[in-house]
Amino acid sequence: MSEEEQLGDSDDLQERLQEVESLLARHKLVEELVHNQDMPRRELVEELVHKQNLNELCFKLDNMHPADIAYVLEALPLEERLLVWNLVRAERDGEILLEVSDAVRETLIDSMERHELVAAAETLDTDELADLVPDLPQEVVEDVFQALPSDEQAQLRAAISYPEDTVGALMDFDMVTVREDVTLEVVLRYLRRFEELPEHTDKIFVIDRDERLQGALSLESLLINDQDVEVCQVMKKVSVRFRPDDEAEEAAQAFERYDLASAPVVDEENRLVGRLTLVAVVDFIREESEAEQLAQAGLREEEDIFASVWDSVKNRWAWLAINLVTAFVASRVIGVFETSIEKLVALAALMPIVAGIGGNSGNQTITMIVRAVAMGQVNPDATRRLLKKELGVALINGLIWGGLLGVLAWWLYNSASLGVVMTAAMTLNLLLAALAGVGIPMLRQRLGGDPAIGSSVMITALTDSGGFFIFLGLATLFLL
Amino acid sequence: MSEEEQLGDSDDLQERLQEVESLLARHKLVEELVHNQDMPRRELVEELVHKQNLNELCFKLDNMHPADIAYVLEALPLEERLLVWNLVRAERDGEILLEVSDAVRETLIDSMERHELVAAAETLDTDELADLVPDLPQEVVEDVFQALPSDEQAQLRAAISYPEDTVGALMDFDMVTVREDVTLEVVLRYLRRFEELPEHTDKIFVIDRDERLQGALSLESLLINDQDVEVCQVMKKVSVRFRPDDEAEEAAQAFERYDLASAPVVDEENRLVGRLTLVAVVDFIREESEAEQLAQAGLREEEDIFASVWDSVKNRWAWLAINLVTAFVASRVIGVFETSIEKLVALAALMPIVAGIGGNSGNQTITMIVRAVAMGQVNPDATRRLLKKELGVALINGLIWGGLLGVLAWWLYNSASLGVVMTAAMTLNLLLAALAGVGIPMLRQRLGGDPAIGSSVMITALTDSGGFFIFLGLATLFLL
Repeated sequence: MSEEEQLGDSDDLQERLQEVESLLARHKLVEELVHNQDMPRRELVEELVHKQNLNELCFKLDNMHPADIAYVLEALPLEERLLVWNLVRAERDGEILLEVSDAVRETLIDSMERHELVAAAETLDTDELADLVPDLPQEVVEDVFQALPSDEQAQLRAAISYPEDTVGALMDFDMVTVREDVTLEVVLRYLRRFEELPEHTDKIFVIDRDERLQGALSLESLLINDQDVEVCQVMKKVSVRFRPDDEAEEAAQAFERYDLASAPVVDEENRLVGRLTLVAVVDFIREESEAEQLAQAGLREEEDIFASVWDSVKNRWAWLAINLVTAFVASRVIGVFETSIEKLVALAALMPIVAGIGGNSGNQTITMIVRAVAMGQVNPDATRRLLKKELGVALINGLIWGGLLGVLAWWLYNSASLGVVMTAAMTLNLLLAALAGVGIPMLRQRLGGDPAIGSSVMITALTDSGGFFIFLGLATLFLL
Repeated sequence: MSEEEQLGDSDDLQERLQEVESLLARHKLVEELVHNQDMPRRELVEELVHKQNLNELCFKLDNMHPADIAYVLEALPLEERLLVWNLVRAERDGEILLEVSDAVRETLIDSMERHELVAAAETLDTDELADLVPDLPQEVVEDVFQALPSDEQAQLRAAISYPEDTVGALMDFDMVTVREDVTLEVVLRYLRRFEELPEHTDKIFVIDRDERLQGALSLESLLINDQDVEVCQVMKKVSVRFRPDDEAEEAAQAFERYDLASAPVVDEENRLVGRLTLVAVVDFIREESEAEQLAQAGLREEEDIFASVWDSVKNRWAWLAINLVTAFVASRVIGVFETSIEKLVALAALMPIVAGIGGNSGNQTITMIVRAVAMGQVNPDATRRLLKKELGVALINGLIWGGLLGVLAWWLYNSASLGVVMTAAMTLNLLLAALAGVGIPMLRQRLGGDPAIGSSVMITALTDSGGFFIFLGLATLFLL
């Protein structure tokens, strides 16, 4: 990060976005003015004002952090986004491509020539390159690969080979290593030969002749200890180390639990293969939590807010289709009881309440259970307790809220028996919701799936159809 | 963190939980056995086996990281939780209290004597203490406060005074500071006087005589530069600094955007008052994303999974009450059209589909807009574009899915006009959902509220009532 870049909080960032936007607006205005006046001096004027504006913009961009440029690019509609993108100095293209969202990255890469992409990719470290590779055209990847020295080719090949949510995909290869039998003085002399240490170095790793990890030496211990002690006397054992194929989520939990700043990644034979930093873990945590939020609303991926209507439809259709199927099933359950509804039309008005509250309550239960399962805090003994507790909560809620609605139904339709059926149906549906709220995630865990994915859809489908069936069924049995 | 503590990934962690649980089970079994045999030697046997078991457990706990003990405590039912808690060495109580969830912390604090709490609190730094204070009884807080040296009293008073989601509440006071006119050699000599540096020190801060922040000196620069240069020659300007009353969420975004490891916190006059570390920011990010997940399902706070039924009911009732009101309103909308439903009972079966899909689609839109608003990427010009796009998506989805359902309705009920009404109602409700999905968060932002909170409830309420109204209204106009 160069000294002169201006960083700031998000107010500054929005200010900078507005500056870019106003420069773009001025640029547009000038273009329109010039095109409307059909004077001979037209070209000259255009060129002058145009240039001045764009120069100012260029200067602004040069002084911005790559992450801030990424932010501006994401906030601009396609045409203006590409205008700004072309003003960015080519040697910064790579780092900016890393920062923008997937959807926006696609639009930028589409606008670039092969040689530009190769040049941009070549400014990156192998671990960064690995993040970019899936989005690059095949021939660009080949060109870049050929241009790498052979050790980096191996690193890149390894980094690409790890699945997305593993430690291997998050780690980098920028670590400093020393032997345990040298003195700190030797280490310090060695470090002074560096122009700079790899970013976010908080410790250096101690390895033996076979690259096996022996321990870690914090920068702190280098600073506060005597220079003539040996590394092995002040190094720490490394209590948390990862394998490249460990799940990133687990690593993230360990980083958080043990307040780590970095950790070594080793192979089966304890040879050091990479380094995982908290900075990389934070990016992962953010992306995960965003992906979860999107998935919960049924969005497949983050949308470029200026994506075409058609891209948005594609991003959203699967979720709507699933919900359509479950809604249709619920509708058919109602269809079975059409003669009951014909006889007592109040049922039609009251049934969505039973279904809806069941869904809400089930989602509360399932959210809690999914969290407990994710933390690994639910053993078979706990399952029984949880089930008992959730059924208890459901019973109380059913009697309270169901009772209240029963009274309302009685008052509205002047039928005490309708009120009783309402209360009974609410209570039963809440009990069903509790049972499913505990059962669905447990079952999915036992079957080896992720208990979070789609659990909310499943329980809502169940409490909808179940709620309609219970309420209309009870009404048919007891009221007609 | 002591050398001997065993850390590990979450498999290890679950293994350790199981060990504790099996020791507890053995302890219980022995107790039961002993109580059932009414022999004279009873007490002796009990004491012996009991002690051996508990000693083993004690030993296990001594070797565990505080975060791991917290994990075990959270996973145990109340009785066993308190048994384990009493086996933990008293001087570790403080750090463990910091790690457990709020709900579990309450149960632990309830079980402790005043003097135990005071002793536990006194093992903590002031910034940690500030996190614990809200949960401690008033008289304990007073005792602890009296025991602090006066500068720490001031720190604690300041730390408590900042609202929860601000930088002030996250920062710590553990920073090392130097003057700019000394040489690195002096700095190094100064650092060697420390037993250890404050945790997660990646840079030390450079201040002038009035404690005004001048720059930062990374540990790295101390290591790779010549010892006879002056601090001012190698220190970096600090481009990101925070105020104690800055929002923590903004600080988190800046840490992520600029890949920071720590940043200084200064007052209005640029005097250094604290330090914000990435480790503290990560804790905040996790808690935020968990709180969001819980809030989305209408849980007020994280539940102790072994909480009493009654505590759970209290944690969940507000959400159910709100949903009950919106469901009741929707039910009254249906009530208005009861005569129509009596005449054409198919309406009752089809209407939940229209309402449900509208809700799903609206939630997709609102999730995307809320994200864009949170990133500050939505200006008035973008609002118009977004609205146009969302209405376009709604129109296409309405025609595709509404058309499909129209055909199904036609086929099921043998009425082409019913099919047309179904398609029209779906399309109109999706357009309403799009309008509200863009409008609600924008409006809330303009009114100064958080666009995320409760937006999902509002849009679901609207698309439910609206969907019923549109579908039944169209049917009444055109079919009856």
